[in-house]
Amino acid sequence: VIEGEEEVASENLERFLVRNAERCRSDIAVISDTSQFGPDLPAITYGLRGVLTCEVILRGAQQDLHSGVYGGSVANPVNALARIIAALHDDQRRVLIPGFYDDVRPLDVEERRRLSELPFDDSESLRALAWGEVGFTTLERRWVRPTCDVNGIIGGYTGVGPKTIIPARASAKISCRLVPEQNPISVAQALEACLRARCPAGIQLEFVTSSRSSAIVCDTNTPFMRAARIAIRDAFGRDPLLIREGGSIPVVEAFRRLLGLDTLLLGWGQNTDNLHAPNERFLLKDFHRGIRASALFFDAVSNGGTS
Amino acid sequence: VIEGEEEVASENLERFLVRNAERCRSDIAVISDTSQFGPDLPAITYGLRGVLTCEVILRGAQQDLHSGVYGGSVANPVNALARIIAALHDDQRRVLIPGFYDDVRPLDVEERRRLSELPFDDSESLRALAWGEVGFTTLERRWVRPTCDVNGIIGGYTGVGPKTIIPARASAKISCRLVPEQNPISVAQALEACLRARCPAGIQLEFVTSSRSSAIVCDTNTPFMRAARIAIRDAFGRDPLLIREGGSIPVVEAFRRLLGLDTLLLGWGQNTDNLHAPNERFLLKDFHRGIRASALFFDAVSNGGTS
Repeated sequence: VIEGEEEVASENLERFLVRNAERCRSDIAVISDTSQFGPDLPAITYGLRGVLTCEVILRGAQQDLHSGVYGGSVANPVNALARIIAALHDDQRRVLIPGFYDDVRPLDVEERRRLSELPFDDSESLRALAWGEVGFTTLERRWVRPTCDVNGIIGGYTGVGPKTIIPARASAKISCRLVPEQNPISVAQALEACLRARCPAGIQLEFVTSSRSSAIVCDTNTPFMRAARIAIRDAFGRDPLLIREGGSIPVVEAFRRLLGLDTLLLGWGQNTDNLHAPNERFLLKDFHRGIRASALFFDAVSNGGTS
Repeated sequence: VIEGEEEVASENLERFLVRNAERCRSDIAVISDTSQFGPDLPAITYGLRGVLTCEVILRGAQQDLHSGVYGGSVANPVNALARIIAALHDDQRRVLIPGFYDDVRPLDVEERRRLSELPFDDSESLRALAWGEVGFTTLERRWVRPTCDVNGIIGGYTGVGPKTIIPARASAKISCRLVPEQNPISVAQALEACLRARCPAGIQLEFVTSSRSSAIVCDTNTPFMRAARIAIRDAFGRDPLLIREGGSIPVVEAFRRLLGLDTLLLGWGQNTDNLHAPNERFLLKDFHRGIRASALFFDAVSNGGTS
């Protein structure tokens, strides 16, 4: 399967799966859309966070108003949006959407130990940015804890120099990363209710969701997992690490729901490849080793996951 | 004097005044950059708020980061900016910059009564937006109370649909409207200190001010004021109201500081003319009556302000 809509939640692929469930019957799905744990540290990803993306739009006056004439006497959509966003986290960086953590399971002691033993080292530039929910390590914050982030914001005058207006409109794109048992639809409803409850009089609020997908955790002890370990060891010259991933691949959840199919996440890139950013790359070395591992995987599966 | 830089604080006109103080010696300055109080309600404006405009820029990572990979573990400049902006007001809509109100004089009882007697009626559309500092009327909020508003904000992805990034940068244009005795430079320093104090670790903050001007209140009982009343009555067919204005005209303060010159603010437009917004207008009727009043003013002055 080759599709180009993963970044917009693969809705058309889902429709295709519904209509072609019989033709799509398989033993296992394999997706190469995850990363190695680090340079020359190949990995099998057994968990993904889910995601919920939405946009909130606040409207005040019909048009921008002169801030001298009206300033202080009308609600300002940018200030209102800032207050709404600020109230999404407490000082411990926990998310303040009511009910947000209700279905989040406490961290498994054994898994927590395993995560802490991974050879993890923030790069210098990112260590300076380190931040997050109090009581959790960086990997826990990225992989097993849910988040709420603003991905973009715009409102009022954004050109060069000042322009003294009360903006008519402000909007923000907000996304939540979700962990197992959190229901994206429930979280979307809770988020919308929470935004509306905090919207001041004089401001109209519009809320639109786009992507919604659940988190996934896979069994790490199956014949396919064992076959993948063998293939990666042969192609990369070392055993893969078992890791989770903070990102989301909505079609993994759709494969399970619509086809009853498990997915193996065998990815070959690096987190330092500038994902979703200018100058994104894929190292040729990883490209070639990934091709080799993918081919060897078929051999290993045909041997039942025994080397 | 005709100049085109009023909206960017008239800095070149100020330089001109410094170099040509002798040639600019005058009895009075007259500026037509204010409004009538309403349709067919001509007015003389005896007070202006001052203004401080600035921009605050927050920077996190070198570039946008994938919110799946990094979300929850790095500081987000948009979220940080929202928290900083939200903390600029309390729930009573008072400005929370430390020291902001220190030099603000309590409202004069006599003036408060006079303002309450003005024939003021919010239009339907603006009544729905009514908002502001608790304990003050709409006109007081607009004319005699200081404010702090965001005029524009931008950060991260602002195109169509979702993009799950942690933005590298976010910025906001912030302006304060100031009242007599507030020093724009002190307020700018207090605002910068307050923004920096609330900026979280992992985020770099840059602060740039642009316009700065003090509020002005003029004596309403001078021969020039009396002459203006006569001229307006003759041109508009009714006595002008005495009003203040929430906007700022920086050169008024410069005329006083550099030339020792008082200014009469005789303006002919309407607040509903879409000032600083698309489709700004100036009614021909007001244009013609304003020309007539301006001409009659010279007669009235030559008579010493007696009809």
